[in-house]
Amino acid sequence: MTQEGLYQQIVKKRSFLCVGLDSDILKIPSHLQKSSHPVIDFNKAIIDATHELCIAYKPNMAFYESRGAEGWEDLSRSVEYIRSIDPDIFLIADAKRGDIGNTASMYAKAFFEHMDFDAVTISPYMGRESVEPFLEYRDKWVILLGMTSNPGAEDFQFQNLENGNLLYEEVIRKGAGWAGPDRMMFVAGATRAELISGIRTIIPDHFLLVPGIGVQGGNLEDVVSAGMNHHFGLIVNSSRSILYADASVDFANTAREKALELQLNMSALMD
Amino acid sequence: MTQEGLYQQIVKKRSFLCVGLDSDILKIPSHLQKSSHPVIDFNKAIIDATHELCIAYKPNMAFYESRGAEGWEDLSRSVEYIRSIDPDIFLIADAKRGDIGNTASMYAKAFFEHMDFDAVTISPYMGRESVEPFLEYRDKWVILLGMTSNPGAEDFQFQNLENGNLLYEEVIRKGAGWAGPDRMMFVAGATRAELISGIRTIIPDHFLLVPGIGVQGGNLEDVVSAGMNHHFGLIVNSSRSILYADASVDFANTAREKALELQLNMSALMD
Repeated sequence: MTQEGLYQQIVKKRSFLCVGLDSDILKIPSHLQKSSHPVIDFNKAIIDATHELCIAYKPNMAFYESRGAEGWEDLSRSVEYIRSIDPDIFLIADAKRGDIGNTASMYAKAFFEHMDFDAVTISPYMGRESVEPFLEYRDKWVILLGMTSNPGAEDFQFQNLENGNLLYEEVIRKGAGWAGPDRMMFVAGATRAELISGIRTIIPDHFLLVPGIGVQGGNLEDVVSAGMNHHFGLIVNSSRSILYADASVDFANTAREKALELQLNMSALMD
Repeated sequence: MTQEGLYQQIVKKRSFLCVGLDSDILKIPSHLQKSSHPVIDFNKAIIDATHELCIAYKPNMAFYESRGAEGWEDLSRSVEYIRSIDPDIFLIADAKRGDIGNTASMYAKAFFEHMDFDAVTISPYMGRESVEPFLEYRDKWVILLGMTSNPGAEDFQFQNLENGNLLYEEVIRKGAGWAGPDRMMFVAGATRAELISGIRTIIPDHFLLVPGIGVQGGNLEDVVSAGMNHHFGLIVNSSRSILYADASVDFANTAREKALELQLNMSALMD
């Protein structure tokens, strides 16, 4: 998907919500457990209930890998299902990969050829080579980890460098030199929303993928006031607060209500 | 596997060789392509030919993921095959994962429960939380990326921190505080062997997993002279130089010869 296409989706749906499909087989409603493919059934119900309210889905690879080949099959079928009901939705593989060039090419193949994702999250530790093979695909995106939402972010991302930057600032500054705002985004956690305005001075034009709203405690209004730019420039993710709000047979309706609440807040903040 | 068990394997086999199973379906010999499971057949032949000469195997996840669920099935069956012919071999999932706690738990499940790996490579960018869920498993290991073998390592790992350390030194110093040498190892690339002695001053006792011998240009003797400690403390990986030395029907014999050459060099250097 192009940057313009993404922008159009945000305007059309009055939403910049991404629903994180962290679908844990142990947490999905018990009545689905009897099905032959509980995770697919769960994902389909969540997708049916939310796709008009969000502009992106972000399956987290770990939740599928934890069940091996069967999990990958569920992931692959979920991606196909999303494409079949809403081809214009932005699909993010939350994979946090990062490896040398020949290996990164294989990951690109996994997410962009074997499956039809639009973007992959990438960890920057191994440098530019980890990113380049993904950029060889037309209209596909790299989402580089910048400042993450977790407490462990402080261990290294907040280290002061000799050049005056914090490590996460250096990653964002350098990463922005590897690809423009039409091919690259950065992760910036909602749990430290006050730092997002600083990130905007480094990259005024790039999209930010913002996790950490909901269970992790981030505040939507703070994120918007610090991070919105002239073409919105924000994709805000919510996973557990939507997926697991209700464990009853009515889970999909509750998920829709939770997503709707976020979308209405977003719509109001877009004005 | 325990640290003592690993040490015993090294002594017994007079080898600290790890064979990297970066099994690329496009590179394996053409006569295998007709099989219904070319990658499994390739891996089995490589394993049969090399398991007496190496103490570890390291499948690289990307090469399996690039073929989706089918690739994961091949991976899983390859792991079972290794366990069936040599239960004492050290099995490393080269995954370079790194995520928040609840996600890291899912990755731990994938590699330690769904499959029977001994260790997983982890990227440090998201900090301690990315590592802890893996350490909850008895006798399982985390191998943290320290100084990698690729040119892109220079982008961030060699940044000077305000406290006087390079980033990779800080990662190794902090990481060593998260788990002892019986649970954690570090990646230190052979392509910068001269820096391995510096790493040894930070972590005299931890094992190092050393990629970058062979195609990437690292020198075995330099690595050993800089990195060997009182219980060897080195696992040296070779992938492409062994797997793809020969594309004929005789590929497994050639792989064995290449592995034997490395093992004999290692044996001589161990004296």
